[in-house]
Amino acid sequence: MTLIRSWVETANDPDCPFPLNNLPYGVFSTAGTKPRCGVAIGDQVLDVTALERAGLLHLGDTPLLDRAAWNPLMAAGPVVWNRLRTILFGHLAEGAGTRDQIEAHLHPLSAATLHLPFNVTEYTDFYAGRQHAENMGSIMRGSPDLPANWLHIPIGYNGRASSVVVSGTPIHRPLGQTKSPDADAPTLGPTKRLDIELEMGAIVGTSSPFGAPITTETADAMIFGYVLLNDWSARDIQGWEYQPLGPFQGKAFGTSISPWIVTAAALEPFRTSVPERVKPLLPYLTESKPGLYDISLQVLMQPEGAKTATVVSETNYSRMYYSAAQQLTHHALGGCGMRTGDLLGSGTISGPNKSEYGSLMEMSWAGREPFTLDTGETRSFIEDGDTLTLRGAAKGSGYTIGFGDCTGKILPAKRNPFVG
Amino acid sequence: MTLIRSWVETANDPDCPFPLNNLPYGVFSTAGTKPRCGVAIGDQVLDVTALERAGLLHLGDTPLLDRAAWNPLMAAGPVVWNRLRTILFGHLAEGAGTRDQIEAHLHPLSAATLHLPFNVTEYTDFYAGRQHAENMGSIMRGSPDLPANWLHIPIGYNGRASSVVVSGTPIHRPLGQTKSPDADAPTLGPTKRLDIELEMGAIVGTSSPFGAPITTETADAMIFGYVLLNDWSARDIQGWEYQPLGPFQGKAFGTSISPWIVTAAALEPFRTSVPERVKPLLPYLTESKPGLYDISLQVLMQPEGAKTATVVSETNYSRMYYSAAQQLTHHALGGCGMRTGDLLGSGTISGPNKSEYGSLMEMSWAGREPFTLDTGETRSFIEDGDTLTLRGAAKGSGYTIGFGDCTGKILPAKRNPFVG
Repeated sequence: MTLIRSWVETANDPDCPFPLNNLPYGVFSTAGTKPRCGVAIGDQVLDVTALERAGLLHLGDTPLLDRAAWNPLMAAGPVVWNRLRTILFGHLAEGAGTRDQIEAHLHPLSAATLHLPFNVTEYTDFYAGRQHAENMGSIMRGSPDLPANWLHIPIGYNGRASSVVVSGTPIHRPLGQTKSPDADAPTLGPTKRLDIELEMGAIVGTSSPFGAPITTETADAMIFGYVLLNDWSARDIQGWEYQPLGPFQGKAFGTSISPWIVTAAALEPFRTSVPERVKPLLPYLTESKPGLYDISLQVLMQPEGAKTATVVSETNYSRMYYSAAQQLTHHALGGCGMRTGDLLGSGTISGPNKSEYGSLMEMSWAGREPFTLDTGETRSFIEDGDTLTLRGAAKGSGYTIGFGDCTGKILPAKRNPFVG
Repeated sequence: MTLIRSWVETANDPDCPFPLNNLPYGVFSTAGTKPRCGVAIGDQVLDVTALERAGLLHLGDTPLLDRAAWNPLMAAGPVVWNRLRTILFGHLAEGAGTRDQIEAHLHPLSAATLHLPFNVTEYTDFYAGRQHAENMGSIMRGSPDLPANWLHIPIGYNGRASSVVVSGTPIHRPLGQTKSPDADAPTLGPTKRLDIELEMGAIVGTSSPFGAPITTETADAMIFGYVLLNDWSARDIQGWEYQPLGPFQGKAFGTSISPWIVTAAALEPFRTSVPERVKPLLPYLTESKPGLYDISLQVLMQPEGAKTATVVSETNYSRMYYSAAQQLTHHALGGCGMRTGDLLGSGTISGPNKSEYGSLMEMSWAGREPFTLDTGETRSFIEDGDTLTLRGAAKGSGYTIGFGDCTGKILPAKRNPFVG
């Protein structure tokens, strides 16, 4: 696939994250205006809510873009998704006859505030990165051996949708119960082991009914698009709470996502297969087409006051052992209904080399091997004032599919007279 | 507290679950009509959506009862909750001057279909019954010792809101991965260890913001009401999947709730304290008022074709170690925002005697000691065609606060050509 040229000149730069090939969906506002649906193109955002209202974007009998969320369009299904993409190509391609009408609805991205692009219905987080699971085993139990079920089940747990926030939202260091191994009782205080998890988030577009399992083909077709996802984690809170029912408050204080939904359609040229199976999967989990995508990923860390951010990790989404379609299929296996706006975190993405680890827990080996930033400072976990950024890109021939940064700054724990 | 008499005569029967003291909130429809908000009184349901529309129930400037869900009223907060209760008392008490106008909006409960009373925003399930936790320890690990964190944390995990269904909804035996200890690999098939969990569900009325912990006083005031809750569980699926991240598909195929929200206001006379602490709690979890309620509970089991149901368990909500307010407080500790419509399952309620166990796993000691029904049949777990019913009542002086049955029939696993 090569670049599709647009009359929005900035979109034709091979390094621009938002060429016409991408057309990612977000929710934006400008000074003094309400949040509404927008599509990024070059260094501009196209107000598609206004476009639909002006009759320049006819998707059906009822408006689908009149809310500050993409859920109605997502629920409308693949035929309508394709229709929207086709209409946008028509308006934005080089030589488009509607240019004058469209141009009036472009706003500079630099002047736009970005909001959560969709209402998160429910949030599930998986554990599908093999290197990450092996690293965590080595760190926590002294052995990289995977749990007995790991090669058979895309292991996941239900997370908390109310904690999902858009990139740029600051996160206060959370309070929680922790207990040191030699203490008699737990104490309450801010986490001392604040971490990130580098993940991709898959967004469910069309729903599946309660009581009905689905195939991987159906699951793949249900996925509307992808975002970058940082599943902020408090390792000490998680360590004390997670037996026997899994992570809870150690994961519930914030999950950041990038502001643009990059559609499955835009990522189609970058499909790649999951790695070879170590053990055969049960047939319900086998895929008829490649379920992962070749998306290169970076983690950047910038202390308060530092002039630049340090790249602390570089890896690729294709490192995952299970695809989002496999995860979604397993999620619905017992009859759990999946709904428009459900968000599925891939699990932490780590490659085999130390430079490819997707959490600070792995990068610093649980604090035993602090790493050094470009400023000369060292880190084991996140300190107050640090800004963490995830960045992702799929590289086509002469163009780039970007997601927009997924960033968050850690603020000190809130003072709280009620607690402790 | 004694009975408050109503001109709806059936409401004055001391055994009627819906006296004027109760006024539980549901969503109902009658033949050929749309679901709308209703309040149970005696053997009738009062159409409060129609009442509000007719100007007989003025709660504020905008309608709060015009949807087929109680969420808008729940979000409106305690002042409005009290206003509604006061207006209903005025209309339904013996000698009410509005009787003629109100009577036109009563429908026989026997002719009403009951729907989910509120939109479940997110669902969290706790593990706060000490006897249940000790029993599960004995069964699974050979020791009743509690997990190290159990006496300090109201342990919980996020469940799946899309699987919450109203009483009466049949549940198909779910498919899932299981592995017997001597097998090399897992197999796919219907669960062989289908179980119930007897629980109470607490419903969040008013929200707490992202990033802000709350006190137990605030948490208590946020709780709008309670339902009976059956957290259907597939023990064999759960056993294979739950390490290391907790229950997932073994719990995602159905959670049944009773059709009426019994308000915290109606339960107020039945408040009772949590049991004495084995170990002191951290201060953020201490309560200034009794957080549990004296609600007697029953589990009934009725095989297909049996004339009557067998009472297989009788216990009380006051057996729990943690209250819903303590659970909600812990849930928000790290800054997790809690929202209108969030549902918190208490955890399985088991008393110290075998006749008080809240799951079949405990009643049959994991199948090692099958129990006998009134029909002469024995059971270890649920068989196809069995109907399971939870029943609850708080007994006042001359009146009863009931919840309506929480019932569900297990149907055979669906045949599924896509899977296995």
